[in-house]
Amino acid sequence: MRQCYFDHVATNPLHPDVLAEMMPYLKEEFGNPLSIYPLGMNARNAIEKARGQVASLINCKPSEIIFTSSGAEANNFALRGIALARQNEGKHVIVSRMEHHSILNSARFLEKMGFTVTYLNPDKNGIIDPDTVRKAITRETTLISIIHASSEVGTIEPIKEIAKIAREHRVIMHTDAVATTGNIPVDVKDLGVDLLSMTAHQFYGPKGAGALFVREGLRIVPLIYGGIQEGGRRAGTENVPAIVGMGKAAEMARDEMDKRIAHVRRLRDKLIEGILKVDNVYLTGDPVKRLPGHASFTVEYIEGESMLLMLSAKGVYVASGSACSSKALKASPVLLSMGIPAGLAQGSIVFTLGMGNTEEDIDYTLSEFPPIIKRLREISPFAKGWEEKGGVCYSPGE
Amino acid sequence: MRQCYFDHVATNPLHPDVLAEMMPYLKEEFGNPLSIYPLGMNARNAIEKARGQVASLINCKPSEIIFTSSGAEANNFALRGIALARQNEGKHVIVSRMEHHSILNSARFLEKMGFTVTYLNPDKNGIIDPDTVRKAITRETTLISIIHASSEVGTIEPIKEIAKIAREHRVIMHTDAVATTGNIPVDVKDLGVDLLSMTAHQFYGPKGAGALFVREGLRIVPLIYGGIQEGGRRAGTENVPAIVGMGKAAEMARDEMDKRIAHVRRLRDKLIEGILKVDNVYLTGDPVKRLPGHASFTVEYIEGESMLLMLSAKGVYVASGSACSSKALKASPVLLSMGIPAGLAQGSIVFTLGMGNTEEDIDYTLSEFPPIIKRLREISPFAKGWEEKGGVCYSPGE
Repeated sequence: MRQCYFDHVATNPLHPDVLAEMMPYLKEEFGNPLSIYPLGMNARNAIEKARGQVASLINCKPSEIIFTSSGAEANNFALRGIALARQNEGKHVIVSRMEHHSILNSARFLEKMGFTVTYLNPDKNGIIDPDTVRKAITRETTLISIIHASSEVGTIEPIKEIAKIAREHRVIMHTDAVATTGNIPVDVKDLGVDLLSMTAHQFYGPKGAGALFVREGLRIVPLIYGGIQEGGRRAGTENVPAIVGMGKAAEMARDEMDKRIAHVRRLRDKLIEGILKVDNVYLTGDPVKRLPGHASFTVEYIEGESMLLMLSAKGVYVASGSACSSKALKASPVLLSMGIPAGLAQGSIVFTLGMGNTEEDIDYTLSEFPPIIKRLREISPFAKGWEEKGGVCYSPGE
Repeated sequence: MRQCYFDHVATNPLHPDVLAEMMPYLKEEFGNPLSIYPLGMNARNAIEKARGQVASLINCKPSEIIFTSSGAEANNFALRGIALARQNEGKHVIVSRMEHHSILNSARFLEKMGFTVTYLNPDKNGIIDPDTVRKAITRETTLISIIHASSEVGTIEPIKEIAKIAREHRVIMHTDAVATTGNIPVDVKDLGVDLLSMTAHQFYGPKGAGALFVREGLRIVPLIYGGIQEGGRRAGTENVPAIVGMGKAAEMARDEMDKRIAHVRRLRDKLIEGILKVDNVYLTGDPVKRLPGHASFTVEYIEGESMLLMLSAKGVYVASGSACSSKALKASPVLLSMGIPAGLAQGSIVFTLGMGNTEEDIDYTLSEFPPIIKRLREISPFAKGWEEKGGVCYSPGE
């Protein structure tokens, strides 16, 4: 049976060239980067090389990169580290309802510490209107954090416009660029952001390596205290192999970006076109301003989990929303905030494409998907009334 | 030239069998553990297997293990997570001056948040007297955190006795067991602790994997918020390969512990005996209650960094203190708290032995060490007055 991995937003396979670059650091080059003998210096040099590669991917200085263990850690670090560092200037933070749980739950932690948080609603395509950001800013606002692109609906937010507003109001701007960095051009100077989170396993790098860009001169309170690693801003013995892998993956992502975008976009467009031929299936997120490899839908009268399991039985691996909550079995707050009714939001399905996917994967999926939907609708209690009203789930002849 | 790696407390090489266990998860088994298709379930099962292996090493339930990215993260998580969870019961925390920076700097963060912290002094061997802990407890005390063994002087603390006192006063007890777990028997039931930190790269596991034992039923505030990973207590896509490696390393450490202890203890005893033949060199830490592979000294009239560099030039790799501060060039606060004068503390040198070390490594080091000390003392401004008083740095004839 064909295996089609369409869940690159959950995680990517490690590129073989990235693994090859990591291998020496999993074997003989095992030194602690803080040690002063050659084994330590080799590890230190390897980390600094990776820092340069990551900086180059997002157009910043190497010294503006702080390595973390994940995108979630980078998000926690950014939100809480800046809010705490600036609490004497104000205790109001702005985020959106499109954010990942690592931002939303960090915001709730700040609320418990006496901060006020404004949660901005997106429009029906998942876009945060810069004007709603402008209106939410008060004299107490110190930080705005808006996601660069949603992993659930693929919508790319107008970060450049929002960052401009933040700057005009002397408010610090963070963006969670976990889904975008390495996948589409991300340039911190062009975006105008002060902080940006990323993670390596979203661009064929290893798990266990993330980073936070912190603009030079910006003070941030550490999340993990300890030794003098990362300029005293993030402690813990560096995960050298993972950091080396992140650097190599960043370099490759930069070199191959155009090719990668073209590849996944072409397949994605074909997939969207085919999936939308099934009745009562709707694209979620913005049809134009979206990640090139991202195709997300709601399927009426169907529960997402059943779709996933039946597709999985056919070797088609997809998600029903954020991987971090896929086991939570609740309608996605992101979809609800976009005005999608709870019942429809339950039928969410997300295909995210990668370099391993082929035209044949798309053809196979487009042949397997319609009969699964038909079968599920036949047994769905939600679909019954609709059938009686003359609705057609899927007509093979169409 | 012979290469002698004597800095196992900074980091260990990855055991080849551990790397072999990790390899599938760096290649084809790249799934996100939260995904519900087979690739995700394989990753999930691998993590749960590792959780069982780690639990088995310290005699707890698998559900009591929370994976982190490092020992430093586990320490931050424990100290701040418990202090915050219990702040309505009191805002006093007890730590010792033997602690790692990840505990000390987390304690300082708590002080900024309005907590009171008592820092206990050790005796001259680095031991925290349980009686000083008892006397420090107030009605406001909610948490005691004492290191299991110091990486700088090797002293093993009387955690069992201290935990008993904590229990009598209904105070939560945490121990930083980063230097001990996997190296000497660590049994959380026998120790009687509520929380315990560890890290894989201290027992031939990979960098990037640590864990915190949290006794069942104990509430802890997360350090990294986000998705539902680790029961909602620690977010971020799991570093599957590193966690798998930590599990395998834990299993091997348990199986081979007696053999490993016997090996490093025999070499260490020979090393200590030889090094102490050099005049004006003193063992730091407790001579008996110390880590089996740990030999630490102060060398009078010498600056530690020069010793390290000259030994490194001869292929002998050692540390002058905690790796996390070795570049800070300050006298170790741990040594100062033990009553060692600042000048002498500057001449600190730490040998930590591992399974790769041989009898020949010790012989070689014992032949290279004395002439290096002699040479350094000849050029040392500190040594001059002493020479004039008739001191002998090293007599080859002895």
